[in-house]
Amino acid sequence: MIQPLNRQWRAARRPVGLAQPSDFQWKEEPVGEPGPGQFLVRILYLSLDPSNRTWLWEKQTYLPPLALGDVMGGGGIGRIEKSNHPDFPVGSHVIGLFGWQDYCVHDGSGLTALLPNDPSIPLTMHYGLFGHIGLTAYFGLLDVGKPKAGETLVVSGAAGAVGSLVAQIGKIQGCRVVGITGSDEKCRWLTGELGLDAAINYKRESVPEKLSQHCPQGIDIYFDNVGGPTLEAVIDRLSMHARVIICGAISQYNKSDVREFDPGPRNLFKLVWQRARMEGFLVFDYWGRAMEAIGALAQWYQQGKIKYRVDVVEGLENAPRALNKLYDGSNTGKLIVKVA
Amino acid sequence: MIQPLNRQWRAARRPVGLAQPSDFQWKEEPVGEPGPGQFLVRILYLSLDPSNRTWLWEKQTYLPPLALGDVMGGGGIGRIEKSNHPDFPVGSHVIGLFGWQDYCVHDGSGLTALLPNDPSIPLTMHYGLFGHIGLTAYFGLLDVGKPKAGETLVVSGAAGAVGSLVAQIGKIQGCRVVGITGSDEKCRWLTGELGLDAAINYKRESVPEKLSQHCPQGIDIYFDNVGGPTLEAVIDRLSMHARVIICGAISQYNKSDVREFDPGPRNLFKLVWQRARMEGFLVFDYWGRAMEAIGALAQWYQQGKIKYRVDVVEGLENAPRALNKLYDGSNTGKLIVKVA
Repeated sequence: MIQPLNRQWRAARRPVGLAQPSDFQWKEEPVGEPGPGQFLVRILYLSLDPSNRTWLWEKQTYLPPLALGDVMGGGGIGRIEKSNHPDFPVGSHVIGLFGWQDYCVHDGSGLTALLPNDPSIPLTMHYGLFGHIGLTAYFGLLDVGKPKAGETLVVSGAAGAVGSLVAQIGKIQGCRVVGITGSDEKCRWLTGELGLDAAINYKRESVPEKLSQHCPQGIDIYFDNVGGPTLEAVIDRLSMHARVIICGAISQYNKSDVREFDPGPRNLFKLVWQRARMEGFLVFDYWGRAMEAIGALAQWYQQGKIKYRVDVVEGLENAPRALNKLYDGSNTGKLIVKVA
Repeated sequence: MIQPLNRQWRAARRPVGLAQPSDFQWKEEPVGEPGPGQFLVRILYLSLDPSNRTWLWEKQTYLPPLALGDVMGGGGIGRIEKSNHPDFPVGSHVIGLFGWQDYCVHDGSGLTALLPNDPSIPLTMHYGLFGHIGLTAYFGLLDVGKPKAGETLVVSGAAGAVGSLVAQIGKIQGCRVVGITGSDEKCRWLTGELGLDAAINYKRESVPEKLSQHCPQGIDIYFDNVGGPTLEAVIDRLSMHARVIICGAISQYNKSDVREFDPGPRNLFKLVWQRARMEGFLVFDYWGRAMEAIGALAQWYQQGKIKYRVDVVEGLENAPRALNKLYDGSNTGKLIVKVA
C-alpha cells in the first residue's frame, strides 16, 4: 500500500504587497503519526480570511507571527482518521487552526472543537453562519454596536462574508442599512436579494457624496471591514453618540505591520464633537457565548431572513492564488478552499 | 457723568496658523441697555481655553462658527449691574459665554448660571476646579475612562488646567500616572508637588521610548489633550481593553478645520488587537451632574489631595496675545484674563 503524502504550503518569504505563490513553498512529506493525547485530522476544507495575510507579518499581531518554514496558518475543517484522544474520536468532524495542508496532528488545544453530527448542516456552514464569520457579525454589531431600530447603519465590505451578515442582521434590528462594496453586481445583490436600503460602489462612485445622499440624518453605526479613506469619509458624517465598530482593515492588510498602514483619518477629532465611540473587537472573546449567536442565526436563516453565499475554490494547490481574491474583490461570499 | 464705553475684541479675519492680534479688531462702543427679560453684565474675568481658537474656524465645530465682525467668543465671569430678569438680580455674580468685552447684555439662556454667594471661593475658581475645567477632568476620566486601582494612566497636556486635574484624580483612584508635558520645570512640578509616578518632556525626550520605560505593563487609559504623534505613540503601547479618552487636540487647533488636521494615527487598527475603545466627549453633556463633581473636587481640594494653578493675564487688551500662551506652552495652569 502506498503511504499517503501530506501536501503543504509553507511560508517561504515575508510577502511584499500581495502575497505571491512564490512566497510559499510546496512541500510533500509523510503523514504524521499522532502521539499520546493526539489525533490525526484529514483536512477537507480551508477557510480563507482577509486577516490570514497579516499572519505572514514578521511582528506579533493578535496571534504570534508565523516563522519562515512554518506551515501557512489557516482555519480548517477535517475528519479525524486516527485518535489517541478520548474527546476526539475517529470519524468525527473537527474545526481548528490546522493550516494549509492535507493532514494535521493535533492535541485539541486552543480553538479546536468537534462539530455536531448533523447531516442537515453542510460542513462549510461551520465557517459561515455557524462559525467565526457568523459570530463576528453577530457580536460585533449587537454587542459592540448596540443598534436601535430606526438608526442608520453603514457597512463596508458589505458583500463579503462578515459584511453581508452584518447588513442583514442590521435590517432585522430595524436599521436603515447602507452597504459599501466594489462592483455594481454586488450592489444589486445587496439592494435586491438582501434588501439593503442603498449600496455604494466605491470603485465607481464618490463615497462622501453618496454617504451624504443615502444618510441624510448622519451615520449612527459604522461597521468597518476596510479601513483607509472610507473610514475618514464615514467619520465626517457621524451623528451624535455614533459607534464605529472596527472589525477589519482589508485595504491595509497587504502591508508589513500596522505601523506601515496608510495614515489614519485626519478628522478623528470629530469623535469629540459627536461624543462618538470607536471600538475594536476580536471574535475569540465571544467563543463562550457561541450558542447564543448560533441559535439566533439558525432561526433567522430558517425564516429566510438571512442569506449567505459560499465561494469554493478547488484544490489545496490553488490556496495562495485564492487568497488574493479577497483583496481584488473577485470573491462572492465566504471564500473556502476544498482540499479533499 | 461720562458714559462708560464697552471695549471689545471682534473677529476681523479667519486666522492662518496662530491667531495674531491683527486677526481681531478693537472696538469701543456705548454700553448696551438691557431690554425686557435681559440683564447687563460687567465682565470681570475671561477664561482662555485651547478650543477658543477653533471658534474662529469658518465651519461649524461643536458650536456655531463666529461670523467676522462678531465679538470674539469666550467664557466670562461678571457682576450684574442692571437687570430686568427676576432670576438674575443686580449685584450677583454670573458665569456664561459673554465674549471678549467689558459688558454684555444677556437673557440668561444657554450655559449661563448664577454663581453661589460664597466669599471663601475665589471667583476664578469657577473656571477651574468648580467649572468646566474641573467637570471635564472629573467626568472625562471617571465616566468615560472608568479607571481601576492599579491601572496605568497616561495624560498628555499634563501640566495644563484639565490635564493636571486628571492626573491628580487618577492618583486618587489608585492609578499609576505618567504625565506628558513640554518642559523640565513642568515635569518637576508633576512628579514633585503633584506626586505623579513619572513625567515625560516631549520636547526633549523620545515619547515612544519613555512610554515604554515608564509603562512596562502597557497603557490602560490615555487621556488625550493634544492629538498628533503622541496619540500614535500611545496607541502602540495600549494594553488589553484599554480606553482612549479624546478630550482635546491642542497640537492641531491652529488649523482651519478638522479635515486639515495632520493625518491620524497609522496604527489605529491596534484597537482591534487590544479590544480597545476610543471615545470623545464634551463637558456640556455633564452640566446636569455638576454638583456630583464639585462635591468630590471640593472635598479632595480641602484634603490637600488636589492642587491647581491659575495664570492671570491683566487687561482685556492683552487677550489675543494671551491666547497663544496656550499653544506655545508658556502658561502654567488655568489661563485667565482679568478684565476689571
